[in-house]
Amino acid sequence: MKFTEQEKKAVYKVIKTRRDVRSFLPDPLPMEAVRRIIEAAHFGPSVGFMQPWNFILITSDEVKARLAWAAEKERKALAVHYEGERAEKFLGLKVQGLQEAPLTICVTCDPTRGGSHVLGRNSIPETDIMSTACAIQNMWLSSCAEGIAMGWVSFYKKNDVRDILELPPHIDPVALLSFGYTDHYPAAPILETEKWEKRRVLDTLIYHNKWGEQYESTG
Amino acid sequence: MKFTEQEKKAVYKVIKTRRDVRSFLPDPLPMEAVRRIIEAAHFGPSVGFMQPWNFILITSDEVKARLAWAAEKERKALAVHYEGERAEKFLGLKVQGLQEAPLTICVTCDPTRGGSHVLGRNSIPETDIMSTACAIQNMWLSSCAEGIAMGWVSFYKKNDVRDILELPPHIDPVALLSFGYTDHYPAAPILETEKWEKRRVLDTLIYHNKWGEQYESTG
Repeated sequence: MKFTEQEKKAVYKVIKTRRDVRSFLPDPLPMEAVRRIIEAAHFGPSVGFMQPWNFILITSDEVKARLAWAAEKERKALAVHYEGERAEKFLGLKVQGLQEAPLTICVTCDPTRGGSHVLGRNSIPETDIMSTACAIQNMWLSSCAEGIAMGWVSFYKKNDVRDILELPPHIDPVALLSFGYTDHYPAAPILETEKWEKRRVLDTLIYHNKWGEQYESTG
Repeated sequence: MKFTEQEKKAVYKVIKTRRDVRSFLPDPLPMEAVRRIIEAAHFGPSVGFMQPWNFILITSDEVKARLAWAAEKERKALAVHYEGERAEKFLGLKVQGLQEAPLTICVTCDPTRGGSHVLGRNSIPETDIMSTACAIQNMWLSSCAEGIAMGWVSFYKKNDVRDILELPPHIDPVALLSFGYTDHYPAAPILETEKWEKRRVLDTLIYHNKWGEQYESTG
């Protein structure tokens, strides 16, 4: 596990430049790169080594259109919760690129994989979807390193996605990920540049030995 | 977002060599490296840019001992579920390095952060802990690049950890992470070398356009 200074820099570079992207070019993606991105997910950590993930590669225009419909339906339902300036901002935000991205991957989590007593999942059952989230973060970072943009869409009703992708009832569609090239790669999170949310000051989030006790770097 | 071939290789190297480590040396860690690892978490993605995480750095021997006690108690409770060879294997596995690691970080998730209508979390509430898991994966990768080993302990009752770290009732202690140097860096997942679980064949986990439809790379 030795890393050179150059390699270390590359790791921080990919962590800091990874962005959630919503605008894609139609150009197709090289399948070897897609395969490397999925392999990166499969090298993610999982509680009890349960590897609860599946990857449904969606390239059919019809299936993409149905997923985009499910996301747009949910977006309209959510718009009702915002008022005034916030509502305008919400409606102006581009929340999905499902239709235009050449590839969408639905990453699923099978909570039954590995049997009824997965090591560590007895104590905290949601570690299965947390494992899947770690795998997705690996996909995001490797995709960024490949020069391929990725967007994570979480605007949908899980049962709509279950119907569209014919998932068994116990399979959890935890994420719809759009992949493609882009000529709109954001320098900062879109919600930050659109002034929807600010980046929090890291020091206020760090405590020492118990909740609320400020961490002093000299302590 | 341009990455050289060298940088790309470094990203895949860190993804493939990252391991869950349970044995640590007592040597203290450079705080600048720890700070970079926490910063990497803060650059993780979060739904609606809600940044739901806090980081409690635990260096007190007393607090570490209490956390190790909570984990050991849970381990004994879980041992009851295994029988025969599986039970022996379970009892032989080292599941935590909380006591010996010089630093433990409890990463928490505040589901109320960002208000009642966090963009995207209206549809899928558990996206808050998934965001936190992505942040943890960033910590794991940057820690690995720094030459610092990390272990994720998920053997505990959340209320025990709430009591020990004086967390408010709505704060979710999603992970206890041990950090330290090690002279036992595993080449493969410990549960794989101990023959507890096998790595699944990736091709069997990839589908096309719907569940169960085998993906053909020529299709």
